[in-house]
Amino acid sequence: MDYLFRDTNYIDVVRGAVETHKDIRLADGKIDAIAEGGSLSGGEVTDGRDLLLVPGFVNAHTHLGMSYFRNYADDMDLNTWLTTAIWPLEAHLTRDDIYLASLLSMAEGIMSGTTTFCDMYYHLDMVGEAAAKIGMRGLLTRGLTDIDGGGDEKLEETRMLYVSYHGRCEGRLEVAPAPHAIYTCSGLYIQQAIALAQEMDGILHTHASETVKEVEDSLASYGKTPIAYMHDLGLGDVHTIAAHCVHMTEAEMDLVNPKKFFPVYNPTSNLKLASGFTPVQQLLEKGFTVALGTDGSSSNNNQNMMEEIHLAAIVNKAVEKNPEAVSAADVLRMATINGAKALGRESEIGSIETGKRADISCFDLNSVNFTPKNNLISALCYSAQSADIRHVLIDGNFVMKDRVLTRIDIEEVRESVANKFEALLARKELDEEMRAAMEERES
Amino acid sequence: MDYLFRDTNYIDVVRGAVETHKDIRLADGKIDAIAEGGSLSGGEVTDGRDLLLVPGFVNAHTHLGMSYFRNYADDMDLNTWLTTAIWPLEAHLTRDDIYLASLLSMAEGIMSGTTTFCDMYYHLDMVGEAAAKIGMRGLLTRGLTDIDGGGDEKLEETRMLYVSYHGRCEGRLEVAPAPHAIYTCSGLYIQQAIALAQEMDGILHTHASETVKEVEDSLASYGKTPIAYMHDLGLGDVHTIAAHCVHMTEAEMDLVNPKKFFPVYNPTSNLKLASGFTPVQQLLEKGFTVALGTDGSSSNNNQNMMEEIHLAAIVNKAVEKNPEAVSAADVLRMATINGAKALGRESEIGSIETGKRADISCFDLNSVNFTPKNNLISALCYSAQSADIRHVLIDGNFVMKDRVLTRIDIEEVRESVANKFEALLARKELDEEMRAAMEERES
Repeated sequence: MDYLFRDTNYIDVVRGAVETHKDIRLADGKIDAIAEGGSLSGGEVTDGRDLLLVPGFVNAHTHLGMSYFRNYADDMDLNTWLTTAIWPLEAHLTRDDIYLASLLSMAEGIMSGTTTFCDMYYHLDMVGEAAAKIGMRGLLTRGLTDIDGGGDEKLEETRMLYVSYHGRCEGRLEVAPAPHAIYTCSGLYIQQAIALAQEMDGILHTHASETVKEVEDSLASYGKTPIAYMHDLGLGDVHTIAAHCVHMTEAEMDLVNPKKFFPVYNPTSNLKLASGFTPVQQLLEKGFTVALGTDGSSSNNNQNMMEEIHLAAIVNKAVEKNPEAVSAADVLRMATINGAKALGRESEIGSIETGKRADISCFDLNSVNFTPKNNLISALCYSAQSADIRHVLIDGNFVMKDRVLTRIDIEEVRESVANKFEALLARKELDEEMRAAMEERES
Repeated sequence: MDYLFRDTNYIDVVRGAVETHKDIRLADGKIDAIAEGGSLSGGEVTDGRDLLLVPGFVNAHTHLGMSYFRNYADDMDLNTWLTTAIWPLEAHLTRDDIYLASLLSMAEGIMSGTTTFCDMYYHLDMVGEAAAKIGMRGLLTRGLTDIDGGGDEKLEETRMLYVSYHGRCEGRLEVAPAPHAIYTCSGLYIQQAIALAQEMDGILHTHASETVKEVEDSLASYGKTPIAYMHDLGLGDVHTIAAHCVHMTEAEMDLVNPKKFFPVYNPTSNLKLASGFTPVQQLLEKGFTVALGTDGSSSNNNQNMMEEIHLAAIVNKAVEKNPEAVSAADVLRMATINGAKALGRESEIGSIETGKRADISCFDLNSVNFTPKNNLISALCYSAQSADIRHVLIDGNFVMKDRVLTRIDIEEVRESVANKFEALLARKELDEEMRAAMEERES
């Protein structure tokens, strides 16, 4: 169906400006026309006077299937957290578990204004099915590791995923390889992933320079910092979505090409795991297109892009000792157009412009957080909450209307995830008991 | 009316523990009994199985009347912001303006689980009236400054406020003096405020060591850091609620008495204004009772204590490079029992214990942010949102029920604030035009 938002307001993220009294018409899933209020016709009309239309957020780095680990193990360092808490439980996840957790994460995303994700996990076909169900746009990347074996099979899975899901759902779904990190992949394997990316669309997704330990181990093993090491393996040949980049050095910033290397800032995860402060201001000054992401619900502990926007807008000011650092307009770009660029989809999404896909959130200006109506860009970054979002459209379709998700029953999904988690815990415990019993018999 | 929450769950903030399957009975505004689920009777029964009861938050430092300045001037340093943006507009606020803005701020507070505030502003009688209307508990402190003149009148206002409002509303309202800061008060005036506090209940509220500029100016003028300077003026003789303490030195921590000096951490404001990182972990290790506050909506830009809790729980981990620093349980204490201690009301509020006043928030455990139900203390700090709070009670009365405020029409208040802001801007502009015209005539 076609829609007309009459006499409404929207954020031009590229210019960092608020446009008021505009008609915005959506047709065939696209932003069909933007003109003075009252001048357009056609489409089902929504009174837009009390709405603020914002480009759908691009969550440029997450692990959607990790909902089960929300609030499961906190106040721990990354290494202990991964090896003692997350990985032992993760080993027991089923395909169905991942489908439901991903659906819940996507629902959370939509409820906080997110329309596009970049996911790294496994059983990505199930993530694709969840995205098809809920109507979300996304980049599916199967996490590739070989130090635990099965490296070739995972590359093959990525190939199959590409054949089955790349371009599906009217082009909403795309696929790329994702070598997990330098501490889980051999150098040769990273090179194989780069080669595979070149066979596909030339895009690659990875974790880079997240912790001090990663940097120290990289220096000890390879005599190079992590991003320099990956660069020497050939990373410069592809378009890279690089999560975290907390400890990216100035030398690395000067080494890689800002037109091909896209750092993704994950403030909550970096703060909570004590990974550190990503040098966002320096990256922006060096010409990098910094995107924004939530990371998984295990380290965040939710999929709320509004929280990341808030953090990005305030934390960097204190880090830089400069209240003008990383402005509200910078942050809104990070959450929208920069994410679109990072995912190689700038021509399609990331801003409210004629001809782009209609991926749009509608904020309610009659909320306390927008009272009084001063600077609306400030309001989005500093005072607004996810609950202030009334509608979300993807490809011109309402995926949330009046805060109700239109494609799924959120209560049903939530209850299913809760039940799946109980079963997951039981499987893990049973497995541990069986191992203990076998060990006892053998001894 | 008396109430019984049947078979419910609550946070014991003192022990940092979750209690499940409990009956909690509220009578005569107090927590009358806590016992095993199904064992109590009496009072109107609420099925508590899917609720998590949390002590009402204590917002230990704010400026409730500043709602008009929300998103009005951002991305600026404290000094420029105060002198060029806030003070020129603030000069035109009326008593009615402050009543309505305070009411809106209190509404925001309640909607995010806050039951007690510590306010510093002017026309505090209007803040008292707003608190009486909405049913909130609070400490009213008239900001005292003398460098701009009228110091004696402001002390007198505090005396009159004490006579009229201290102990009012069944004891919910209290009054204390509030010398604003060392850069707005002479040394003699701070001593007069301390003497006035001793005439009253011995409690004093101030800003302390917020910015590097304040510390440098203090060293230049007095040869001492700000808190050491105030200590030498006699601050040690009173119970001090000290907002910010961003640059409190180790020497100052060793100088003041942790039983009488209560630092209030204001993470959003400190980050956004680039004031810096309050040494929270160090303060806790030194035995200080650190409380938590939002600061005003001009520098925050809302009154959402859930955001401060989230920030306090994640930012300090990165600052300390230690994921175990400032745990979720520490932060919940800061937002509740520590705030109660800071305000000198530990015997009345700050925890869910038999005999205390029934100031309680009820979180909906059937929210996505609590799915699956893992560690509920983690959930409160890392994933929950204000919108997950269903009910709020103060003195055993529902001030919010099913997310609807019971004492005010929030839409009406919101619209009034929006209208008042338009009028405020018009008064400021008219005044500027008249001044310009007079200057022209005189020249």
